[in-house]
Amino acid sequence: MKNVATNVHWHSGDITRTDRAKLLGQLGATLWFTGLSGSGKSTIAVALEKALAQHNKLSYRLDGDNIRLGINNNLGFSAEDRTENIRRVGEISKLLVDAGVIVLSSFISPYSADRDAVRKLHKESDMPFIEIFVDCPLSAAEDRDPKGLYKKARAGEIKQFTGIDAPYEAPSNPELHLHSDSQSLETEVALIMDFLTERGLLTLQHQAVED
Amino acid sequence: MKNVATNVHWHSGDITRTDRAKLLGQLGATLWFTGLSGSGKSTIAVALEKALAQHNKLSYRLDGDNIRLGINNNLGFSAEDRTENIRRVGEISKLLVDAGVIVLSSFISPYSADRDAVRKLHKESDMPFIEIFVDCPLSAAEDRDPKGLYKKARAGEIKQFTGIDAPYEAPSNPELHLHSDSQSLETEVALIMDFLTERGLLTLQHQAVED
Repeated sequence: MKNVATNVHWHSGDITRTDRAKLLGQLGATLWFTGLSGSGKSTIAVALEKALAQHNKLSYRLDGDNIRLGINNNLGFSAEDRTENIRRVGEISKLLVDAGVIVLSSFISPYSADRDAVRKLHKESDMPFIEIFVDCPLSAAEDRDPKGLYKKARAGEIKQFTGIDAPYEAPSNPELHLHSDSQSLETEVALIMDFLTERGLLTLQHQAVED
Repeated sequence: MKNVATNVHWHSGDITRTDRAKLLGQLGATLWFTGLSGSGKSTIAVALEKALAQHNKLSYRLDGDNIRLGINNNLGFSAEDRTENIRRVGEISKLLVDAGVIVLSSFISPYSADRDAVRKLHKESDMPFIEIFVDCPLSAAEDRDPKGLYKKARAGEIKQFTGIDAPYEAPSNPELHLHSDSQSLETEVALIMDFLTERGLLTLQHQAVED
């Protein structure tokens, strides 16, 4: 049995999340992009990151590529490892939001239960969690196949590939539902920016921290 | 055997770390506080966080408490788990630095090899890593015993406690060597601020991101 920590507590300190929000001129939030491989999650996140920067807003992208080469380089693609992958990404997203960052997390994240756990984690700490379903028919994603992964999965060279021999559970009630097979990238980014504006996430101004 | 990711790559995107640094008016860096339990690491980090905010700089504290309640809630205090704990914190620190944040990581981090691995991780990506040794004799830390942990360790209620029945390997060449049994908190914060100023980490000004 592991000697797991029991005598630890959240150290609140003097500078709060509100102070950081004032300093940054923005409220942190997690925008969680979910969808099939090739659905366009990362492409949308990259374009959104640019749009946010042009509005002087700090965002940071987390994706399967940079996370799996770093903190999650000891995880694979079994159901258990996918769950741990998403759990860790959820915790990292939360830390970044607490720091004040607008986090753009784009992961296939095929299991509803895993995404709901990340949502719960944010809600418990009163942090915005915005689930964005990048909906794209499997046939369209497979036609694109930007990394040649579907081809490998069909050939049996990659196992447990979402949509082929592993399930994708579509969100039942996402904050935003994009259709990447019919909407342009510009439309998708505009829809997200509108949503963030409506939620008041882009309006906070810079403000000095008082002594 | 785990089906570990092999076909992933770092996704660089359009907005760079330099863009984020301009937007924030600061360069990200990891300040890594290491020392015995009760040496004053978190106290110094909390005071430094305030000093940085008064200079309009965004920092974020990671510590044993908030990390072990979150992402590392599945790790204990065995040598193996301590190593994985510090590895994950190192990766998270790197992500925050990449986002532009000044990270204040305060962990006992008793093993030199673990701290050196975090240093290497930062150096590989050309990210500043500043090791701050919060030096305090065991007797002084044990006299303070702010959380009553030494008392429990002496009574055998906590096992593998650093300094009692687990080793602490002091840094051989830290960027800053503080002596928390003889220096005031004000002095310690001033020494760190001077160091950051010398390194040019506090001088960058805000700059809009160009189209």
